[in-house]
Amino acid sequence: MDYGNGGDHRQGRVLLVGGTHGNERNGLWLLDQWRQHPGQLHRHGLAIELVVGNPAAAHANRRYQERDLNRSFRPELLDDPDASQYELRRARELLARHGPGGNEPCLVAIDLHSTTAAMGNSLVLYNRQPASLALAAALQRHLGLPIYLHESDLHQSGYLAACWPASLVIEVGPVAQGLVCGAICQQSQIAVETALEALSQAREGAIPLGSELVVHRHLRSIDLPRHDDGSPAGLVHPGLQDRDWRPLRAGDPLFLAMDGTVTAFTPEQGEESEHCWPVFINEAAYGEKGIALSLTRREVLPVAAAWAASLTALAKRLKQDLS
Amino acid sequence: MDYGNGGDHRQGRVLLVGGTHGNERNGLWLLDQWRQHPGQLHRHGLAIELVVGNPAAAHANRRYQERDLNRSFRPELLDDPDASQYELRRARELLARHGPGGNEPCLVAIDLHSTTAAMGNSLVLYNRQPASLALAAALQRHLGLPIYLHESDLHQSGYLAACWPASLVIEVGPVAQGLVCGAICQQSQIAVETALEALSQAREGAIPLGSELVVHRHLRSIDLPRHDDGSPAGLVHPGLQDRDWRPLRAGDPLFLAMDGTVTAFTPEQGEESEHCWPVFINEAAYGEKGIALSLTRREVLPVAAAWAASLTALAKRLKQDLS
Repeated sequence: MDYGNGGDHRQGRVLLVGGTHGNERNGLWLLDQWRQHPGQLHRHGLAIELVVGNPAAAHANRRYQERDLNRSFRPELLDDPDASQYELRRARELLARHGPGGNEPCLVAIDLHSTTAAMGNSLVLYNRQPASLALAAALQRHLGLPIYLHESDLHQSGYLAACWPASLVIEVGPVAQGLVCGAICQQSQIAVETALEALSQAREGAIPLGSELVVHRHLRSIDLPRHDDGSPAGLVHPGLQDRDWRPLRAGDPLFLAMDGTVTAFTPEQGEESEHCWPVFINEAAYGEKGIALSLTRREVLPVAAAWAASLTALAKRLKQDLS
Repeated sequence: MDYGNGGDHRQGRVLLVGGTHGNERNGLWLLDQWRQHPGQLHRHGLAIELVVGNPAAAHANRRYQERDLNRSFRPELLDDPDASQYELRRARELLARHGPGGNEPCLVAIDLHSTTAAMGNSLVLYNRQPASLALAAALQRHLGLPIYLHESDLHQSGYLAACWPASLVIEVGPVAQGLVCGAICQQSQIAVETALEALSQAREGAIPLGSELVVHRHLRSIDLPRHDDGSPAGLVHPGLQDRDWRPLRAGDPLFLAMDGTVTAFTPEQGEESEHCWPVFINEAAYGEKGIALSLTRREVLPVAAAWAASLTALAKRLKQDLS
């Protein structure tokens, strides 16, 4: 199957996904709310497709059924006719229907996530697509949101959002799995509406982006200390908990072992010169992935004219809904 | 089977239970820690039985398998030979082994729980057993912990702790299900060790309790507004979230409906004269029980001499472990 972009001439909608992880309930709540009360979402004149990412997992209030949907958008898996896990079938279905080359194409994907980590209202990018950078820059300019540029991670790939020519993950926390929390919904909605406003402005050819984009670029992830049998031998140090987006210095505590031993942060080669910035500290779902936190480097990117141009070209093909 | 107290002459241990709910990982973490590193728990000379409440659910990282273990300790269920759900079998097993009349009897039960609600470090009592009140009074005197006296609830019963002649539930939050959080573990451990110290003092006949015990007595629970099909039509109002243990006044916001309507708190008859105090606001596991929060009344009980006498008599039968 061809999951390509369908050429650069077709019109399409904005794909707004919640429940890519079925136990992240705040995005699901918002989808329900916007379906039942369309007036509750300021669409800025854009045609929007509201989609539950993983309906079976959402029904079961689980992250996933057979495998993580948000690690399933990998070409070698999607193209393998013998790979038939529920989430792979769902990924193919989403692309066939709403992919940029799909039957009901969408050109921009906004994927709503929540986390048990104290990430606040934040954005995740998986690559440096110019249109996605432009969209992120617009949100950072308006709302000041921090951005985790989760690129070049050899251990984690296959993200839903990365399959669309422009995309954003809106990641809000801390909130427990399975829980709907008003403030988390509100923060998510503010980010969504600001993104829609930016797309609408881009459609008019008038998107103001500022001159710089601050990103936190992925360096590596760190696992808990573990026993020989794989079970955790320590926990995230209480002094590190909830310190997402704050600088981590050599010698700062990372983990507290069962026997009371403290593991301190030791920069690897190339990490000494500047601070590292941790994100996704103690996300409940990442234990099975061997991730207790991820380290990033804070970088300031100059906003390129090509970003706005790319987003504008894309946004001009966005369908309008002026109902 | 007789689950009685086994008379008032037998010696017994202190039962320390974690994982009565299998996705409340902090108690499970502490049990592991204390098994692997016994020196990490200050036992105050008492013989302690460390027990995972619901091993199958803990293995699956779920609250329960077939029914909530902590609503399964009801005589009519335990005595019903046709009732064979996993948690009922486990409840019978726990009582047969570690009940006050069991093979390896325990006289005091301390049950470690965590919650997604912002309960802080707190205690739950299910009745007014004098020995339990004495133990709670000792913890409140030392640590200032608030106490939810969850008695006389027609809709919720069958709690593990209530089967022992003295018991405490240590309830700490907020923390996500499935997550081990250092600060939650530390708070739980402080409460456990203070309880063990109090039992040790009672054993010596010298437990200081103060003159008053402040409890928050259960009045009723309130469910979210719901659609006809049972699905939630609103969420806990952001202004109420995390305000456990703080007074709720008539007119304060309770819920925010999908259409934006705010439901305000309306006291029922008998509730007008004083403030109500909410607890367990937005506990993730209580959605299925139809509980968005519970209301309590703050009451000050004079400490009765009989409380300390009861706890002392019980504590004198506690086995020592002076290893």
